[in-house]
Amino acid sequence: MREKGLFIVFEGIDGSGKTTQLQKTVAFLEERDLNVVVTREPGGTTLGAKIRSLLLDVDNQGMDPLCELMLYAADRSHHVTDTIEPAISRGDVVICDRYALSTLAYQGYGRGLPLDTIRSLNQMAIHGCVPDLTFILDMDPIVARTRIARHRAQEPDRLEQEKLDFFERVRHGYLTEARQAPQRCAVMDGARRPEDVFQSIKEILEPLLCTLR
Amino acid sequence: MREKGLFIVFEGIDGSGKTTQLQKTVAFLEERDLNVVVTREPGGTTLGAKIRSLLLDVDNQGMDPLCELMLYAADRSHHVTDTIEPAISRGDVVICDRYALSTLAYQGYGRGLPLDTIRSLNQMAIHGCVPDLTFILDMDPIVARTRIARHRAQEPDRLEQEKLDFFERVRHGYLTEARQAPQRCAVMDGARRPEDVFQSIKEILEPLLCTLR
Repeated sequence: MREKGLFIVFEGIDGSGKTTQLQKTVAFLEERDLNVVVTREPGGTTLGAKIRSLLLDVDNQGMDPLCELMLYAADRSHHVTDTIEPAISRGDVVICDRYALSTLAYQGYGRGLPLDTIRSLNQMAIHGCVPDLTFILDMDPIVARTRIARHRAQEPDRLEQEKLDFFERVRHGYLTEARQAPQRCAVMDGARRPEDVFQSIKEILEPLLCTLR
Repeated sequence: MREKGLFIVFEGIDGSGKTTQLQKTVAFLEERDLNVVVTREPGGTTLGAKIRSLLLDVDNQGMDPLCELMLYAADRSHHVTDTIEPAISRGDVVICDRYALSTLAYQGYGRGLPLDTIRSLNQMAIHGCVPDLTFILDMDPIVARTRIARHRAQEPDRLEQEKLDFFERVRHGYLTEARQAPQRCAVMDGARRPEDVFQSIKEILEPLLCTLR
């Protein structure tokens, strides 16, 4: 039996169904009378929300990318020590919308900031708090975009093509990282029907839940 | 001849005469018609001031020490890329009140946070921007305290004894780090008369100024 709770993270590009599957999972766990703590990054704490507004507030003031990474890391460090770690120690199930892997995928693979630097900052910020399981909702960015803007029928313009390239890199980042930690990452085909995706999530979750006291 | 300006930092515990000597130095440089940029950490930029107020604002909300270190590092990274590095590139003389060494001395030696972590964050945050010279105003904390509260004649109470111990550790940190980079750190005996301290500073500065274009 586990000495403590569970830490489960949902990752994926926008439009991949991440939030839908997260909500289904929370409902499923609460039906089983588990104490579930739902949180998110960035901005999962009071202080984190202030850091987040700083990130948004100064968006156009020429903040250097490393400063931005460090603010994300500060938010993460506080989030872990203030919220995630105490909940896990209590035996709760923590469900987190994005975590360290998002920074690696978006800022690293997506925007091209040095992966080593991001890994170092993540390593510090998580205080050893590695998720028991990360669900990566995988989806072709074109499909994800179509899902988001279902009613538009335009061809992508140049800006949108750039966005697609960006999300292709983010997706590639997620898949690359998942291959390096297959025991902790479950890549889910997000293009299937939401009920079918959730069925697969449940099948992976069930054995983990049995390990909870 | 140098291709760029100079970067000079003033360090020391409160009461050591750091600010007095910094101001004398700025006046001396400006008399020589040099372009001087005077700045400080933390909070030397608009964004930095916001980060600083975040640090003060949440002082009592249980911010974890690593989060605090990362916020200082974010401030420093932005300060370097926004203010210090551009000024040096223009050929200006940058005079900075506290820099990376302060974090090492206060948070590391003083408060006992891991020196390795602080060194890693400093290393990232300074973007290779190492001061040409750091003046460390050295002083016995008891003397420094007497200088600050010249008109009080009390014996230190328990809290004050703790503070003295803290500043002893900070002082020890400054001296230890200075020994490891003697070519870049000048330890000044701050207990001498201010004019005599400044005379010594000028004697060290003069040869450096001759290298400016």
